Amino acid sequence: MSEALLDPLFTTDAMRAVFDDHARVQGMLDFEAALARAEARLGIVPAAAAFVIASACQAALYDFAELGTSTRLAGNPAIPLVKALTAEVARRDAEAARWVHRGATSQDVIDTGLVLQLREALRLLDDAQIRLARALEALARAHRLTVMPGRTLLQHAVPVTLGLKAAGWLAAVQRSRTRLRELVPRVLKLQFGGAAGTLAALGARGPDVAALLAEELQLAFPDLPWHTQRDTIAECGAAVGLLGGSLGKLARDIALLMQSEVAEVFEPAGHDRGGSSAMPHKRNPVGSVVAQAAAARVPNLVATLFAVLPQEHERAIGGWHAEWETLPAIFRLVAGSLAHVTEIVEGLEVDVARMRANLDATLGVSFAESVTMALGAKIDRAKARQLVEAASKRAIVEQRHLRDVLRDDAEIAGHLSEAEFVALFDPQNALGASAAMIDRVLAANQE
Amino acid sequence: MSEALLDPLFTTDAMRAVFDDHARVQGMLDFEAALARAEARLGIVPAAAAFVIASACQAALYDFAELGTSTRLAGNPAIPLVKALTAEVARRDAEAARWVHRGATSQDVIDTGLVLQLREALRLLDDAQIRLARALEALARAHRLTVMPGRTLLQHAVPVTLGLKAAGWLAAVQRSRTRLRELVPRVLKLQFGGAAGTLAALGARGPDVAALLAEELQLAFPDLPWHTQRDTIAECGAAVGLLGGSLGKLARDIALLMQSEVAEVFEPAGHDRGGSSAMPHKRNPVGSVVAQAAAARVPNLVATLFAVLPQEHERAIGGWHAEWETLPAIFRLVAGSLAHVTEIVEGLEVDVARMRANLDATLGVSFAESVTMALGAKIDRAKARQLVEAASKRAIVEQRHLRDVLRDDAEIAGHLSEAEFVALFDPQNALGASAAMIDRVLAANQE
Amino acid sequence: MSEALLDPLFTTDAMRAVFDDHARVQGMLDFEAALARAEARLGIVPAAAAFVIASACQAALYDFAELGTSTRLAGNPAIPLVKALTAEVARRDAEAARWVHRGATSQDVIDTGLVLQLREALRLLDDAQIRLARALEALARAHRLTVMPGRTLLQHAVPVTLGLKAAGWLAAVQRSRTRLRELVPRVLKLQFGGAAGTLAALGARGPDVAALLAEELQLAFPDLPWHTQRDTIAECGAAVGLLGGSLGKLARDIALLMQSEVAEVFEPAGHDRGGSSAMPHKRNPVGSVVAQAAAARVPNLVATLFAVLPQEHERAIGGWHAEWETLPAIFRLVAGSLAHVTEIVEGLEVDVARMRANLDATLGVSFAESVTMALGAKIDRAKARQLVEAASKRAIVEQRHLRDVLRDDAEIAGHLSEAEFVALFDPQNALGASAAMIDRVLAANQE
Amino acid sequence: MSEALLDPLFTTDAMRAVFDDHARVQGMLDFEAALARAEARLGIVPAAAAFVIASACQAALYDFAELGTSTRLAGNPAIPLVKALTAEVARRDAEAARWVHRGATSQDVIDTGLVLQLREALRLLDDAQIRLARALEALARAHRLTVMPGRTLLQHAVPVTLGLKAAGWLAAVQRSRTRLRELVPRVLKLQFGGAAGTLAALGARGPDVAALLAEELQLAFPDLPWHTQRDTIAECGAAVGLLGGSLGKLARDIALLMQSEVAEVFEPAGHDRGGSSAMPHKRNPVGSVVAQAAAARVPNLVATLFAVLPQEHERAIGGWHAEWETLPAIFRLVAGSLAHVTEIVEGLEVDVARMRANLDATLGVSFAESVTMALGAKIDRAKARQLVEAASKRAIVEQRHLRDVLRDDAEIAGHLSEAEFVALFDPQNALGASAAMIDRVLAANQE
Repeated sequence: MSEALLDPLFTTDAMRAVFDDHARVQGMLDFEAALARAEARLGIVPAAAAFVIASACQAALYDFAELGTSTRLAGNPAIPLVKALTAEVARRDAEAARWVHRGATSQDVIDTGLVLQLREALRLLDDAQIRLARALEALARAHRLTVMPGRTLLQHAVPVTLGLKAAGWLAAVQRSRTRLRELVPRVLKLQFGGAAGTLAALGARGPDVAALLAEELQLAFPDLPWHTQRDTIAECGAAVGLLGGSLGKLARDIALLMQSEVAEVFEPAGHDRGGSSAMPHKRNPVGSVVAQAAAARVPNLVATLFAVLPQEHERAIGGWHAEWETLPAIFRLVAGSLAHVTEIVEGLEVDVARMRANLDATLGVSFAESVTMALGAKIDRAKARQLVEAASKRAIVEQRHLRDVLRDDAEIAGHLSEAEFVALFDPQNALGASAAMIDRVLAANQE
Repeated sequence: MSEALLDPLFTTDAMRAVFDDHARVQGMLDFEAALARAEARLGIVPAAAAFVIASACQAALYDFAELGTSTRLAGNPAIPLVKALTAEVARRDAEAARWVHRGATSQDVIDTGLVLQLREALRLLDDAQIRLARALEALARAHRLTVMPGRTLLQHAVPVTLGLKAAGWLAAVQRSRTRLRELVPRVLKLQFGGAAGTLAALGARGPDVAALLAEELQLAFPDLPWHTQRDTIAECGAAVGLLGGSLGKLARDIALLMQSEVAEVFEPAGHDRGGSSAMPHKRNPVGSVVAQAAAARVPNLVATLFAVLPQEHERAIGGWHAEWETLPAIFRLVAGSLAHVTEIVEGLEVDVARMRANLDATLGVSFAESVTMALGAKIDRAKARQLVEAASKRAIVEQRHLRDVLRDDAEIAGHLSEAEFVALFDPQNALGASAAMIDRVLAANQE
Repeated sequence: MSEALLDPLFTTDAMRAVFDDHARVQGMLDFEAALARAEARLGIVPAAAAFVIASACQAALYDFAELGTSTRLAGNPAIPLVKALTAEVARRDAEAARWVHRGATSQDVIDTGLVLQLREALRLLDDAQIRLARALEALARAHRLTVMPGRTLLQHAVPVTLGLKAAGWLAAVQRSRTRLRELVPRVLKLQFGGAAGTLAALGARGPDVAALLAEELQLAFPDLPWHTQRDTIAECGAAVGLLGGSLGKLARDIALLMQSEVAEVFEPAGHDRGGSSAMPHKRNPVGSVVAQAAAARVPNLVATLFAVLPQEHERAIGGWHAEWETLPAIFRLVAGSLAHVTEIVEGLEVDVARMRANLDATLGVSFAESVTMALGAKIDRAKARQLVEAASKRAIVEQRHLRDVLRDDAEIAGHLSEAEFVALFDPQNALGASAAMIDRVLAANQE
Repeated sequence: MSEALLDPLFTTDAMRAVFDDHARVQGMLDFEAALARAEARLGIVPAAAAFVIASACQAALYDFAELGTSTRLAGNPAIPLVKALTAEVARRDAEAARWVHRGATSQDVIDTGLVLQLREALRLLDDAQIRLARALEALARAHRLTVMPGRTLLQHAVPVTLGLKAAGWLAAVQRSRTRLRELVPRVLKLQFGGAAGTLAALGARGPDVAALLAEELQLAFPDLPWHTQRDTIAECGAAVGLLGGSLGKLARDIALLMQSEVAEVFEPAGHDRGGSSAMPHKRNPVGSVVAQAAAARVPNLVATLFAVLPQEHERAIGGWHAEWETLPAIFRLVAGSLAHVTEIVEGLEVDVARMRANLDATLGVSFAESVTMALGAKIDRAKARQLVEAASKRAIVEQRHLRDVLRDDAEIAGHLSEAEFVALFDPQNALGASAAMIDRVLAANQE
């Protein structure tokens, strides 16, 4: 729920503004104003009336608390708003009041108002993703060759680079942007159908009004109303939710890398940032934590949008209402996550030396695969595997570097030269196709 | 999110107040005041300091927006609040400021504050359930013998009574109350463990402080802190969520019974209640719709609480944060649902004649089972079934009452007397154990 | 879970086969065979060895139960399968066994195997959607002008046509097909990265192997491996889930229309179809029920895929494993739903007369809006609304048709001619833009 | 879905058997046999017929695949099973066939059959929890004083003991057992209501039959049928799901402690256990991973049970069907998780030295709080905090132990004696109330 106390932590001011009471009411009023203008263009509504109506379509003129009280009785906020708008228009021009909300139904007002909010919300998200993509690109470039332990199941595997990790995070943002672009034509579309979706109240003029209304609002004009066909709403929530999940992955990686025992990267420090009330020395992964909290909440908000897809006949008995606070909550949480993650990436402190030290701490056993491959090319592969496995265990038990254990192993030493030993244990030789992969992702970012 | 526009529709003022910024801050301050008092009783904190601290523990003294801004940096609202409290105490008595928050950690403050809010929230829910139970009891009593079609898969089955339906709704509320009582000792318990849950900062005095603190707050004293063992939080959300689901079932039944074609019951009418912006004559199931919307949203909020149970070590990286707005949202939605459903049940308009007419509209085929049983006692059961099935089809095709079709069927008529025919098709004879079932539920309500 | 008892109800044989043990193992073996071939083309693996490996890559050669037992210890099915494959290859050609699984990691095998299954699953879904779209198109055409009550909040609103409902269902299938086409390039892509995603074990040859492997399998070649970037997996589940929801909407409409009191359409009858064990005369909406059950389950399976997006570093500690049964379950349920819904639409029984009778049963009050509009054009709009509202109430109270009540109302009668009265209450005049909307959707189906 | 390949990883053989086709069919047949016996005791059914019916109630007599095919048409498995049972009885005694399924409806059969499965499933879970509780008790006792770093937000906080962690895990299992015991009277209850829940087909004998049937099956006798009041089913899933979450927390802790950089505990090693296909030296947290996967899946299965609570009238249109595979899946996953976690705890390898080394690696800064408290008792508290904070930063920058930095600080050294310095940095002195907390949990385990 929207709160002064927690909202700054969980969302951004900008996204909060897109979905607050004022924006919700203004979205509905923008619909009413555009409807009056469209109908005036067709001569259905007198131009003067349309002018008065449009001038009354300013959210600041209405008392949200009063509208809220009436919403409880009416079952939706459009009914009291249209009443209040009609009264406001009547106050200015009694005749004009006849022409308010002509041919529309509550859901037309609310859904189109929502779509207008979504347009702004998607724009904000896209801008924020571009900014994050730039930061990730810079990180990938800067650390293209910065070696660190690859970790599978939280165990050291063969080395990777920080650049490769950054490229992986970046590619997810790229896919997110593509996905959100793809759904725009499906999502940013007019809702306009009247009482049961047939535009019956406008007789033969319905389609013309709809077309002009779409034009006024610069929204797509769907083949038919979507009062109870909500797949595009759920789809929108899902696409934003996927971004939230990808940010959660990035954040979890950061939080794991910030662990006291790992200490390879740090969220940017700052006055009062990430302090602990009990332990003055700690630096907490505040942003990562919030991004992970968002990634835990968003999937279930998305599930709600999916769960209410079976909406009854021409207007649902609850499914539609269940969307009202849910879709905004997804946008709010993901925007907050995006802001935190962007701050983290832009200000990320990287301890390259520690990465190298951590790599060494596992005594070269993460190079065992390369050694097995190299040795397997010379002797029987199964035998090679068995020998290296035994040597790895010895390395750990004796706390000696695997290279040294191997060098001392008569069965192995003869097959590998000193130069080969050095090369095999040089992480820069163990990066495989990492650089090429990074470059492909960076190239995609230029497009 | 909390909004002037939609909150009145989706929640109650009382529950809204339990979980707003003020209540959240006051819950945390109540913890700090009680901590100071408990420590004063043990001589750890000077009594005078405890007095000053307690006097500064009033939410109204603090600027929530400012606390919100700092929360974004700190990662939780307790850190800035403790700072602000310390400053406020210092303003009154510099020496007393030393003793604020002694031995506690942020999560102690936030969790115990939450538990205090939950105590109030559970009290509100229990009161509201008692009121609903009373209304359902009255309904069950009044309509103990009011016959209506039983409906399975939305098809007419054998008759039931409205009293039996009401008893079913009531039994669910009874189970909900039992369940919520059972979890109180697990949920309403102190959180107090200090930095890592060991109360280390209080040395040997930890357990004594904890015990007195629990006493001050009248909370249970758990065997150990539960900073990352959150099953009781999830359990609490689940139990409230179950109630939300049972209310959703009741609401769905009402919405289905209000259908234009069924029209057996109606939500109470009222000025402006349930109107339609486009269709002046309609009376919409507003309350049922909101209760069903809640029942669609709550399961996924519950799922979030379950999903974040695996919290890391001594303090989680996101799981805990994901609870903060989620558990309150469950209470808010279920309280709103409960209010709507109670209004509906208390003011339910019942059209007994229509129920009887609907029963007749299926031409007696819903009595086919009784006829089959009666006939099956006289002739071969399979044969009986086959005959009645054929007669039922004929009844529907010919739009004649099954009783008349059967009477005209030579193979059947001989086996059943006219009195038997009349009795078989008297719905009051077809209610089986309904009355006994209702009485059992009503008796349970007296306890 | 997969069962002889319930699978036929909940899924199709074809989709069941795509995700059974055999298909899962064959998918993994297809990866191994293709890998050997790709590496042979590059001279990394001897051609003869590749031939032997490929010939051993037949699922029927392996004991799934034995693999299952080993999977419990290994943590994934690829490890025991690769071992069993290596043994099988060795049995045929000891030398060839050296070359099995060269440079790959378990997740490469499992994920690429999954992608191959997904390709087949998506093909099945597309075929099934085409078939459903055709059936819906036929329905929309046949009932372009079949008038029935529009229903909002389950109350009669202005009339619609069955054709319009069918067009709405059809448009959702069209969007689903578009959506599933859009994600193909993102989803049907090779997974190949080796131990930590760098292809290190293949040295400089990694990218070439990857490219040829993608070619062998006719899969897209991603910029980099996606071992812990699972947004495309979740996206795939979401897109299929949206279809499941749209089918649930269609099914719910059918079940509501089949109600005893509504009786406007019926699922096709058939031997043993939809019978009731206790009530011989009933015809249950079996297919609709299954489709709605699927629509209730799928959203939460989708949520699981979203919840596990934050996968750790280069290989997750549980998130990946949580996908294994979840994504197949989504496909299975939606395929089952699609089959049921298609059967329903193809064999739908429509009672046109009953639709018209139901329309009349609300005594013309669903035409109140048109009357209000017509009257509002002649007298003051607010006054018109008030008069019609009063007349509607009288119509219901007195159980007379609204038309007759209006005719008898002195304040109204003078303003509307008899011809206007007749026209206003002719449903064919009240369909607004329905036909045009249907035509737009049908036109889109030709594309 | 149930599979030879993955089932051994995700569930146990025993739990798999409780919910397989055989058990499902046997549960339904046990209902039919008991119904015949109960009705025979009341003289409704001839004793001889009841005997024949009971003798035919063996699952092995029926063809599940054939039942499955018919289930697709019938909409539930009880209808074809009752038919097959009737045929089987008729084969033995034509007259007896009349008396099969007397007065019952499909849902009575299926739900009571399920309850019988749940009784066995809950027994299995309780046994498994007792075993885990014993293992955790032993671990807590053995490591009551084993010091390790406390970790909040994955950062070192003040020390804890492994015993305290084990006690936390144990307390969660204790609460789980309490919770599962509490719901038994609500969940293990007869379902018996006939066509619409009124027992109408049994006339006045309904309640007597129901009471004897409950006695035969040793199930509770509910006040009224619960065909569409499913809160106890959802509650059962939720309680099991809470256990799954608590196991997930334990598993996540283990996986984090097993990290290469932490290496404080290890899952038990074993032949082929936790190997990596690409990296021979790795030991993967296989069991922890599976337990975390279960903890990710179960919340959404629970959500499904909650989402379908609003079931329509006397029999639902999909909600009930959505439960059929969902509740068993929860039990299966949690049983699997429990087995893995128990194996882990029973065989846990603990590296006490490494714990101590990790504690030292943070250079004493985790003792900063104690030092601040000690110093704050002698000088101004704010000043103390400031000094220690500065010293902590210096310790990290200079990579010297905080103790040494403090000793060298003129402003501090004077206030603390050498003995105080030693004591302050002795982890055994920093454990606060840990031992007392452990003892309380262990004492509770004796009850």
